Amino acid sequence: MFNKKSIVVGFAAVLVSGVVIAAPVHNTNITEDEVRQAQEAWGAALIQISQDYSEGGLAKAKATAEAVLNQAYGYGHGPVLFKPTLATGETTFRITQEGALSYFVGDNPDFGDSGFALYGWQEYSFDNAAVYINGDLALTMGHVHLINEAGERTTVDKTWGFKKDDQGDLRIVLHHSSLPYTE
Amino acid sequence: MFNKKSIVVGFAAVLVSGVVIAAPVHNTNITEDEVRQAQEAWGAALIQISQDYSEGGLAKAKATAEAVLNQAYGYGHGPVLFKPTLATGETTFRITQEGALSYFVGDNPDFGDSGFALYGWQEYSFDNAAVYINGDLALTMGHVHLINEAGERTTVDKTWGFKKDDQGDLRIVLHHSSLPYTE
Amino acid sequence: MFNKKSIVVGFAAVLVSGVVIAAPVHNTNITEDEVRQAQEAWGAALIQISQDYSEGGLAKAKATAEAVLNQAYGYGHGPVLFKPTLATGETTFRITQEGALSYFVGDNPDFGDSGFALYGWQEYSFDNAAVYINGDLALTMGHVHLINEAGERTTVDKTWGFKKDDQGDLRIVLHHSSLPYTE
Amino acid sequence: MFNKKSIVVGFAAVLVSGVVIAAPVHNTNITEDEVRQAQEAWGAALIQISQDYSEGGLAKAKATAEAVLNQAYGYGHGPVLFKPTLATGETTFRITQEGALSYFVGDNPDFGDSGFALYGWQEYSFDNAAVYINGDLALTMGHVHLINEAGERTTVDKTWGFKKDDQGDLRIVLHHSSLPYTE
Repeated sequence: MFNKKSIVVGFAAVLVSGVVIAAPVHNTNITEDEVRQAQEAWGAALIQISQDYSEGGLAKAKATAEAVLNQAYGYGHGPVLFKPTLATGETTFRITQEGALSYFVGDNPDFGDSGFALYGWQEYSFDNAAVYINGDLALTMGHVHLINEAGERTTVDKTWGFKKDDQGDLRIVLHHSSLPYTE
Repeated sequence: MFNKKSIVVGFAAVLVSGVVIAAPVHNTNITEDEVRQAQEAWGAALIQISQDYSEGGLAKAKATAEAVLNQAYGYGHGPVLFKPTLATGETTFRITQEGALSYFVGDNPDFGDSGFALYGWQEYSFDNAAVYINGDLALTMGHVHLINEAGERTTVDKTWGFKKDDQGDLRIVLHHSSLPYTE
Repeated sequence: MFNKKSIVVGFAAVLVSGVVIAAPVHNTNITEDEVRQAQEAWGAALIQISQDYSEGGLAKAKATAEAVLNQAYGYGHGPVLFKPTLATGETTFRITQEGALSYFVGDNPDFGDSGFALYGWQEYSFDNAAVYINGDLALTMGHVHLINEAGERTTVDKTWGFKKDDQGDLRIVLHHSSLPYTE
Repeated sequence: MFNKKSIVVGFAAVLVSGVVIAAPVHNTNITEDEVRQAQEAWGAALIQISQDYSEGGLAKAKATAEAVLNQAYGYGHGPVLFKPTLATGETTFRITQEGALSYFVGDNPDFGDSGFALYGWQEYSFDNAAVYINGDLALTMGHVHLINEAGERTTVDKTWGFKKDDQGDLRIVLHHSSLPYTE
């Protein structure tokens, strides 16, 4: 489901005395392309969970959500700074994977979520206001747009932090989502 | 107004054959203490702007806000990912310093802000839900509490990204603030 | 054989309205202590290989050297910038683990090494001239002293680069060793 | 004398609902191209000092060397891990700019150097064995070849560490150079 990019080990051709020698280059940095792919993948995953819920019920949706969290989030390495759109009160921040799973598919009395990924999402797009790349970490901020089965459009203000791990996969370590301010 | 910490150039004592040699250590990393100091400084700056507005009017508040933005934000190095609490619509994201200044003190028809720092803030506290430190960049997520002259308390969900610059000063490069979700 | 330190996930106590909340802190940075431990471990490993060779012959020494390379070097993630003390000519740089293993224990006609770790090393010490820490990467430069069974002391000029991986283990990604210049 | 590259603030075109929005991208990472340019610049600077010495004597060579150290090395931010090719004994490591300047142009009784950059260098080339890029820091290891006025060729084993500063300029923070091992 997620496009992955390995750590780049490219080859730089060097011309020395008429002989071309290939120097291996190990590069741990995140690229802008990788960030955009990870942003695309997040939306595709959300829609997949919605579709799996529609076709296979909660069990299927939950299995997909778990796979997404395992692959695309950094919970396996430590706490993730996750403030989901509709989370509030004492469960505003979902630092553990359990809290994140509950947010996406509900079914956990400790959090009382209805399951954001079960809302029948069908379309997704995003427009970044700015991107900040610093080593193996990239930050994005912008709007995310979602359209459900009824054709209703929801827009949120969203910040993501992506960390490239040792295998070259991007993982979400920061995710702050909020509804637009209304006066 | 801002507590600053220089790049650490410490000395590690090494015992070799009975002789202690001091090895200089150059360390560009952010520490947890520096992050907390920067978080404290942000609140102190906000209260200072409010106080300057009360005592010296808009001109004084604006001068202070400009100094704060110059010192504590990263606009001098490039775009800052800033989504202020009450910003919305086409001016949701304040990527430039002009937009940030307008948010804090208003007085700019291009943005139409009333000036968030002019609301008579008197007390400030924060509680981090989690902190993520990666090289010279640190991310925090948690609640920020503000109390105004009337004793009214406002709580926001806030994410910050701090980057340590070459002089050892922390600069905000990411700032996403939002009101708690209400059903 | 190697001291390991996990990624630090500490807890910062935050006092808010009289309630102490523990905020998990995820920190991927290398510390000076970890660097010194890795430097200690390198010497201990070299002496271990010498001892295993003395007690168990080449097979045992080679098995230990392989374990050391797997644990303490970064060959599993990509090329390592390794210029061993006595390597020269076309095999000066040992970018692959095969070349590094040959340098330490010989037994590989492609490189023709006599096996530097088989020289009966018994004591090891180092004194850093300077240390440079930048995120999850640390650089050291200084002298390394080795004493063999005959009590003869060898000193080399040595530069190391250590990278902290996702599991919190330090891995050598750079190693330049050279005999002191003699006029 | 040195090619500089600013911090990249590019623009990523984003297509949203038929409208192209340009998202500013702030990227602090070193690129392979920048590393090669810095390697080229080092050689050009060495040859320039030799030429200035030939044409303008020690004063001119020294002024150029100081300018090179100010621009291309990181002494302004802290200690540099510098082991020059011909340095030995108690002055093996040139952690301060004073020691580096002495190495290149001599004229300092505290170090007793003859001035490596005064040897009439006329040609320079390098071939990297491998390159390691990690955030704003890049490491290279390989051979450097120098040819003097008499057409004599000197080859050294060389490791460099380049750090990209806040202005987007690469600075040498690590430099280990050694003559090839001879049996």
